[in-house]
Amino acid sequence: MPRIAKHSLRVDLIPGGRIGPGKINLLEQIEACGSISAGARAIGMSYKRAWDLVEETGKILGKPVLVAKTGGKSGGGAALTPVGRALVTHYRAIEAATTPIVEAGFAQLEKEIEAAS
Amino acid sequence: MPRIAKHSLRVDLIPGGRIGPGKINLLEQIEACGSISAGARAIGMSYKRAWDLVEETGKILGKPVLVAKTGGKSGGGAALTPVGRALVTHYRAIEAATTPIVEAGFAQLEKEIEAAS
Repeated sequence: MPRIAKHSLRVDLIPGGRIGPGKINLLEQIEACGSISAGARAIGMSYKRAWDLVEETGKILGKPVLVAKTGGKSGGGAALTPVGRALVTHYRAIEAATTPIVEAGFAQLEKEIEAAS
Repeated sequence: MPRIAKHSLRVDLIPGGRIGPGKINLLEQIEACGSISAGARAIGMSYKRAWDLVEETGKILGKPVLVAKTGGKSGGGAALTPVGRALVTHYRAIEAATTPIVEAGFAQLEKEIEAAS
């Protein structure tokens, strides 16, 4: 059995949709790069796809996750709203808290598989 | 924000592939129904798809997860191997241990979203 590489957390909200690593990573990149277009580019995603995912995330949560930053030399950009920031923060905290449990469980499974005839 | 409905645990093993709720549920159904065909039928999956998922799971773990039960009036069937049973058991245990963490985190997020302007 291969070593565990990583686990990903996906949460289905009803009514709503799924929040998983794709949306979270995108939001982090948008925040880091300062705009949807730059954030999408950083992870090789099309602008349209990024926009759709951001819209979908806002609909799932019931409030926008991005706010436009207008003006300035850069011609505007985007930043996370407090809601968007709370989503990313809690998602990453949950991930950090669950990872040791997942890794310990799969390490034990690995031992049992190796011991099996 | 909607209430959390459920979260699903997906584990990426490298080299290997992904173990998630689909494969685990299928293995449980095969064990409960006594054959791949009956287990697949119970969850509305084609026999071919079920067979492929079982094969893929065995390849990921490096050992088979099912063993054929030959003979008898039923013309044979399938049961989990000790490896298959260990996989299902550990996956469900990990899920049970991580669920409270996920639910508490999203409950806190929900409060923050409701409080946001």
